[in-house]
Amino acid sequence: MEREEHELDQRRVITLLTDFGPGSGYAAAMKGVILGITPGVQLVDLSHGVPRHDIRAGAFLLWSVVPHFPAGTVHVAVVDPGVGTARKGLIVVAGGQYLVGPDNGLLYPAAERLGLEAVYQIKNERYMLPNVSMTFHGRDIFAPVAAHLARGVAPPEIGEEVSEWTELRFGTGELRDNTLRGSVIYIDSFGNVVTNIPQELAQRVLTPGQEAEVEVLKLGVRARARFLEAYALAGEGERLLLIGSHGNLELAINRGNAAQVLGIKLGDELEIKVRSARRDGRC
Amino acid sequence: MEREEHELDQRRVITLLTDFGPGSGYAAAMKGVILGITPGVQLVDLSHGVPRHDIRAGAFLLWSVVPHFPAGTVHVAVVDPGVGTARKGLIVVAGGQYLVGPDNGLLYPAAERLGLEAVYQIKNERYMLPNVSMTFHGRDIFAPVAAHLARGVAPPEIGEEVSEWTELRFGTGELRDNTLRGSVIYIDSFGNVVTNIPQELAQRVLTPGQEAEVEVLKLGVRARARFLEAYALAGEGERLLLIGSHGNLELAINRGNAAQVLGIKLGDELEIKVRSARRDGRC
Amino acid sequence: MEREEHELDQRRVITLLTDFGPGSGYAAAMKGVILGITPGVQLVDLSHGVPRHDIRAGAFLLWSVVPHFPAGTVHVAVVDPGVGTARKGLIVVAGGQYLVGPDNGLLYPAAERLGLEAVYQIKNERYMLPNVSMTFHGRDIFAPVAAHLARGVAPPEIGEEVSEWTELRFGTGELRDNTLRGSVIYIDSFGNVVTNIPQELAQRVLTPGQEAEVEVLKLGVRARARFLEAYALAGEGERLLLIGSHGNLELAINRGNAAQVLGIKLGDELEIKVRSARRDGRC
Repeated sequence: MEREEHELDQRRVITLLTDFGPGSGYAAAMKGVILGITPGVQLVDLSHGVPRHDIRAGAFLLWSVVPHFPAGTVHVAVVDPGVGTARKGLIVVAGGQYLVGPDNGLLYPAAERLGLEAVYQIKNERYMLPNVSMTFHGRDIFAPVAAHLARGVAPPEIGEEVSEWTELRFGTGELRDNTLRGSVIYIDSFGNVVTNIPQELAQRVLTPGQEAEVEVLKLGVRARARFLEAYALAGEGERLLLIGSHGNLELAINRGNAAQVLGIKLGDELEIKVRSARRDGRC
Repeated sequence: MEREEHELDQRRVITLLTDFGPGSGYAAAMKGVILGITPGVQLVDLSHGVPRHDIRAGAFLLWSVVPHFPAGTVHVAVVDPGVGTARKGLIVVAGGQYLVGPDNGLLYPAAERLGLEAVYQIKNERYMLPNVSMTFHGRDIFAPVAAHLARGVAPPEIGEEVSEWTELRFGTGELRDNTLRGSVIYIDSFGNVVTNIPQELAQRVLTPGQEAEVEVLKLGVRARARFLEAYALAGEGERLLLIGSHGNLELAINRGNAAQVLGIKLGDELEIKVRSARRDGRC
Repeated sequence: MEREEHELDQRRVITLLTDFGPGSGYAAAMKGVILGITPGVQLVDLSHGVPRHDIRAGAFLLWSVVPHFPAGTVHVAVVDPGVGTARKGLIVVAGGQYLVGPDNGLLYPAAERLGLEAVYQIKNERYMLPNVSMTFHGRDIFAPVAAHLARGVAPPEIGEEVSEWTELRFGTGELRDNTLRGSVIYIDSFGNVVTNIPQELAQRVLTPGQEAEVEVLKLGVRARARFLEAYALAGEGERLLLIGSHGNLELAINRGNAAQVLGIKLGDELEIKVRSARRDGRC
């Protein structure tokens, strides 16, 4: 019995995603709380570099990594500008994984991607720290709840199922008159500009492996870029469009920083006019 | 027997706190040394973002997180400008946890907070790496000592008990004539300004949940701030005072960076004059 | 049998070294993939702060930490500007450890240091993710291959042995007419300037513990520095030369940033003219 629980624990994974910044100590406090409840659990930092209070950027990061984690993983996400107000705390069950965090949209895209099963509002104080502060629910509520989930406590034991929660969608871009329109949902550490235009839509007018002439319009800025399959297929310093590892259309500069060079920011709208695309039957 | 040791190991936690910066590789070398001695131990990064050689900032971070870790945890802390000089290396036993690092004050506040039990000067070379450098005791002495403690080696086996070691205190602020005086002991990644004024002292003149008018004086800078219970209870961009998650009085700007906006630095002295505080019996 | 595999897993270590930057989420995706294949494996971040696409800096970091890890450790290194081109993916067996990453020189110095045993080109798609992208082999190839190695799969099962791969050498400096010549192979987070001049060569003309007058020439910049055994033996703000924790000659400023102050960059050539070195028989 003890043996079995031990086996369970050490194979369970809890990830942390926050906007605390890399060296803050707040994430460490959460880890201490978790390890006090579930010794031996595997801790993984998803990111502590979410821009402060940027719920959309946090939601994108979570969305982008959850499909790679095994069933049973518990993801704790804390981008929580409303801490101490009436906003709910949630457990979301989706695709056999658990998402724990504030009800502000942060968990929504990841849950949709994994396959939403149920949403619970955290209620049972037995699974929180004894003294819950009004400034740090990551440590006082979400970390202990995640640790208890990883121990095997069932969500209905911790919260009450709810049917309404805050939705957040990135949109999926659109295609009209050979022009793709979308917005910037993420800029990675290389300065690659990730749009909300999915591979399927992009590839209706753009053909990988073949040159295509496109324009990118943004605040009056025009730029040309080839649609390629890999960064290194462009010349050094050359702009390119490609399907990034997230599965979305991305604007990049090979060995350069596209966002910086072109002055592009999160939330910017892009138009991509395809000039000379040809299809050759390749996917 | 082997089985039992194994079980012990994998539930033991070793944390690391350093001023090495996030991507330096020095922390990784320490982890390699630890895992060679105690396979399966749980490693947690407290922070590698302590400002270089800033013993007080490191001491604060350690102080702020240790209460959240389970008994038996070993914390290795390396902010060590005096490495290679005669300064001692220490094992501190406090509240059932272990602190390992240089004798320069870094471990003192955490030990006081946990409940000091005993201090040992590290002596036994059997528990160090074979060739101890004069530049990196984190890797050559503190990491292997921590690993052996996590394995269950008793501190008197590794060092000799000492009665004197370097003390470091943050002070606790003072209250006179309805004016709180204290100093800045930490600035977090959000720019929130943490003072050394404890909750108990602050709440003698400031009432949570109720508006209070205060002034903050610093290098001639005056500012007004309300005393609130949560960041989000202030308007966006509004200054506020609150009891932070560390349990101390904190100056913040909701969704802004108080330290930057007000030009406040570590060590600055603050005066908080309470203008219109009223008590309503709430705690 | 199941038991034995379990025991194996949890004592195995996989490290990650990348140029993704600290909060990117790409490293998290790699960890998710690994934990899906080898639950319970110990994950260690070597560094995600390698300057973007800087293969030499990544190779140095890897070289500097691998000797500290236990046998059986799998190091995954991804500094991979050529992803999506014809460059090979490799498994290198060296000194009882495994190195996994692109064939661009990144793994070479670490392998030489550990003692090269064999090099395999990754071929078997069974050990990759089902859909391999052209932009992120770290997640799609190197992470799953590392996880399978940690599970105990033998390298010849995953790849084909090759005899040629990309070499990368830091050089070892030279000594002529009492002048050491070398180049800068790393600048650490403190601004300490690490050269490719090994301890043995440096100590032929420089005597630790004793004052030596030296000049550092670089782009016409001359500076004097004493050769000391520890940073703190220099005055605050004083330049010094010492044998760093990597075992190479290093130029530093006690409590200062030598690279910044002297304008030294990676790859710069240094000349160190020894003026008044005396030998006293100490090593």
